[in-house]
Amino acid sequence: MSHSNRCAACKSLRRRCPKDCVLAPYFPPTNPQRFACVHKIFGASNITKMLEQLPVHLRAMVADCMSFEASSRMEDPIYGSVRIISRLQEQIIEAQSELVFENT
Amino acid sequence: MSHSNRCAACKSLRRRCPKDCVLAPYFPPTNPQRFACVHKIFGASNITKMLEQLPVHLRAMVADCMSFEASSRMEDPIYGSVRIISRLQEQIIEAQSELVFENT
Repeated sequence: MSHSNRCAACKSLRRRCPKDCVLAPYFPPTNPQRFACVHKIFGASNITKMLEQLPVHLRAMVADCMSFEASSRMEDPIYGSVRIISRLQEQIIEAQSELVFENT
Repeated sequence: MSHSNRCAACKSLRRRCPKDCVLAPYFPPTNPQRFACVHKIFGASNITKMLEQLPVHLRAMVADCMSFEASSRMEDPIYGSVRIISRLQEQIIEAQSELVFENT
């Protein structure tokens, strides 16, 4: 038995969406861009594997984190999420220098 | 014509390593783990595509950032590199609170 409304993943992969589809809860048909993004960066089989490996209560988080990483890499094909890490590290260095300055 | 010593990618994919192999400069045979990691998370075709899309002088950086992201996800299959981002954001909040405290 399949959903009347296929999830974004099954729609994109042109397959029927089974009632127990692993991807459906995290990739609703209302947001096709979210699946397109993780599909392009990680591939559909990797996302499916990642979700299946984890207990159900952790899957929403892994889907969110993978979506975030994938969209970071789409926006910045060189640095991806590492760009955000570098910026935050710079901010910490600035804040720490300011603290040192305040304390002298 | 192929290398006498295949790169980590070609060795892992059990194919000959051509002289102009896109992956060879960034995945030397001395570090098979580095390729195994990005292969598992992004897939070999995605890494190849990412590298090919970019000019040669930027490829080492994308290989490094993808390796970093992939190893973060191997270490932490739920949060991946997002874990590092959250920790850094917490550190910034702490440093900022400390600054506010110092200024009062």
